[in-house]
Amino acid sequence: MRIREVTITPVAFADPPLLNVTGVHEPYALRSILQLGCEDGVVGLGESYGDEDFLVLANKTAESLVGVDIFDLPAVRRAAVAAVGGGIYADRHGLTGGVSADKTLQTVYSFFEVAMLDAQGKLLGRPVVDLLGAKVRDRVDFSAYLFYKYAAHQGFQPDEWGEVLTPETVVSSARKMIDRYGFRSIKLKGGVFPPAEEIAAIQALRDAFPEHPLRIDPNGGWTPATSQWVAKELDGVLEYLEDPTPGIDGMSQVAAVAPMPLATNMCVVEYAHIPPAVEAKAVSVVLSDHHFWGGLRLSSALATMCETFGLGLSMHSNSHLGISLAAMVQLAGATGHLTYACDTHWPWKTQDVIVPGALDFEGGSVAVPSKPGLGVELDPDALGRLHSTYLNCGLRRRDDATYMRRYVPDFEPNTARW
Amino acid sequence: MRIREVTITPVAFADPPLLNVTGVHEPYALRSILQLGCEDGVVGLGESYGDEDFLVLANKTAESLVGVDIFDLPAVRRAAVAAVGGGIYADRHGLTGGVSADKTLQTVYSFFEVAMLDAQGKLLGRPVVDLLGAKVRDRVDFSAYLFYKYAAHQGFQPDEWGEVLTPETVVSSARKMIDRYGFRSIKLKGGVFPPAEEIAAIQALRDAFPEHPLRIDPNGGWTPATSQWVAKELDGVLEYLEDPTPGIDGMSQVAAVAPMPLATNMCVVEYAHIPPAVEAKAVSVVLSDHHFWGGLRLSSALATMCETFGLGLSMHSNSHLGISLAAMVQLAGATGHLTYACDTHWPWKTQDVIVPGALDFEGGSVAVPSKPGLGVELDPDALGRLHSTYLNCGLRRRDDATYMRRYVPDFEPNTARW
Repeated sequence: MRIREVTITPVAFADPPLLNVTGVHEPYALRSILQLGCEDGVVGLGESYGDEDFLVLANKTAESLVGVDIFDLPAVRRAAVAAVGGGIYADRHGLTGGVSADKTLQTVYSFFEVAMLDAQGKLLGRPVVDLLGAKVRDRVDFSAYLFYKYAAHQGFQPDEWGEVLTPETVVSSARKMIDRYGFRSIKLKGGVFPPAEEIAAIQALRDAFPEHPLRIDPNGGWTPATSQWVAKELDGVLEYLEDPTPGIDGMSQVAAVAPMPLATNMCVVEYAHIPPAVEAKAVSVVLSDHHFWGGLRLSSALATMCETFGLGLSMHSNSHLGISLAAMVQLAGATGHLTYACDTHWPWKTQDVIVPGALDFEGGSVAVPSKPGLGVELDPDALGRLHSTYLNCGLRRRDDATYMRRYVPDFEPNTARW
Repeated sequence: MRIREVTITPVAFADPPLLNVTGVHEPYALRSILQLGCEDGVVGLGESYGDEDFLVLANKTAESLVGVDIFDLPAVRRAAVAAVGGGIYADRHGLTGGVSADKTLQTVYSFFEVAMLDAQGKLLGRPVVDLLGAKVRDRVDFSAYLFYKYAAHQGFQPDEWGEVLTPETVVSSARKMIDRYGFRSIKLKGGVFPPAEEIAAIQALRDAFPEHPLRIDPNGGWTPATSQWVAKELDGVLEYLEDPTPGIDGMSQVAAVAPMPLATNMCVVEYAHIPPAVEAKAVSVVLSDHHFWGGLRLSSALATMCETFGLGLSMHSNSHLGISLAAMVQLAGATGHLTYACDTHWPWKTQDVIVPGALDFEGGSVAVPSKPGLGVELDPDALGRLHSTYLNCGLRRRDDATYMRRYVPDFEPNTARW
């Protein structure tokens, strides 16, 4: 079965003013939605970043794909190689670590690989989880993902989550999120306030949720020395400490004294980073992300690699919609070595491009869909609405720092600032 | 689609008196043939070792598989875990390195995994290569596999290959094998004669076949010091030196001075060996073997791991029949990071259990079958014949050393003897 038509639709959806070390989320998050229209009416779906630089590479790749058999993934890789041409897609926020030609290629390839697997599954009448190996779990656990946030975007009405800038409001937003989704572990995005304040927030969460495993992720906002201090302060409190400081060297200094595992989606973000990270004993947990680790099949291999080298594995998340969540859930469903609840930004979005009901949270987990392919269906009207939002919102690449200056005029993103 | 019936048939096929460090091949090689009879008449095929100890574990695993869905590989793993029960299947020849509970489990699981993938492919109408990722190559290269050998088994007629005990006869058997199959690289099984004699044989091959990459494999027959000497003697002659000495420590001593890459299917034979081998820089090439690396999917992940850690990858072979070759070819067809021609004992066998024609050699390579599943068909009459041979031959476990004593009464297998 061959590809007849490739459609990439940039979309934007309302996103709250969530704070991180590089600034604050803009009023709209950007994504791209891929439809591989195949013979026999099968449509393979994919989702990835919506930055313009990514869209250029994706569209260039797409040009070579009409007529390609949906099992011919090597043809997709060749198309991506040709389109990327050794170039680098660099996001502006840096929240997923460094950029490189290989990471760029894996990112572009992944967008199409997921859609190819969706199409294959639909053709064969099997869920993607079966194509990745087999379903080793029926449900996939996710973590609550808390952010410090402003009450409202400038010029917009406040969102339902309100302002979250103190330990008390962190706890109340956690309670609201857990009441709604049933999450059984909690992550706080840090790197926003001086570390003592964020330690206090974690301690408040520990008091309020004594049974929930806790994590904090300052996105490399601390020096190694500060990270060592925080790690000791939170001894016995965190299940893992995520990216306290930038780089393999810095992480390895922290890991040498930290009583808890260190996790990363910043210093190990491509295959070339694994050997030096292993050698330096820099991290204990890799937070994988199929969007930049080369798709679902390579992410499966990454899991085997982590198991072999005694590394834990979980999943990183950027702001995303339902196609990405479906891909994450299918992958997690096939991944035996998945040692922590996965991240998801799901609770923060209020809109989607898929028909609702396929990915409901219960007890903090999502059932692996058993329908063919990814198990989700595109809602053309919803896609049209979010595409209109994209056209009208004016945003073309995520830039948390520039937007942050509307709130804090002299703001400078600066990892390891504390 | 569920499994209705599981049939494991031990078979034996005529095998020449091939010499190695542990002795000499017996008159018959043992294998087991697996048929997973499924609803709708689909039959999934597998092949593995025929030693009695393996058959006990395989048959015990099989007892739990009736009613299992052919996509439910976790159920197969659970059945294998229960059947193996932490026990160890130890072959008596030791030519595939050490044994362990994990290697045993991966060996038993693999037998069934291949047959499940064959059944899945047949149900879905796709070759196994598509289930493993995608076809990255149309043909798979194999190496000529030369052995020192006696002219005949005791009490049997000489086989067509005659006696091979000198550099001259090594060259003539290479010529015959290459004329017939077109191999474009050559491996010599060593560890049989003092290293100087085997160096002379390699030099004779180099003179006779100046363009063919060459390898020698003494199965750990040499000390580290001898291995270092051989490596220097064969500088510029070998594409790799395979298992010159036993163990990761010994190999790492050799690797430190050897001018060519070291390859192994003895010191890295399970996932737990990879981290210490990487740390010790013990090997440059892993010779994978799906029969004991946990099946085709895990072997794909092993390839990604090797690529990540800068290790080359090829495939090891024991005496095997067509189902195993089909599995090797499907796996190799899906494996981008396969950096050398694979091993195969194929030229040494004169019988098989599959319908001929599916796996023809041309130019030393085999086309990846495009038929559903593994792409080979069982010949029930041939299976019956080789099962009769098994019943009548009296062999129940491979034991090259005991048999060798008929030729050399005081023979003792002894790795690192030189």
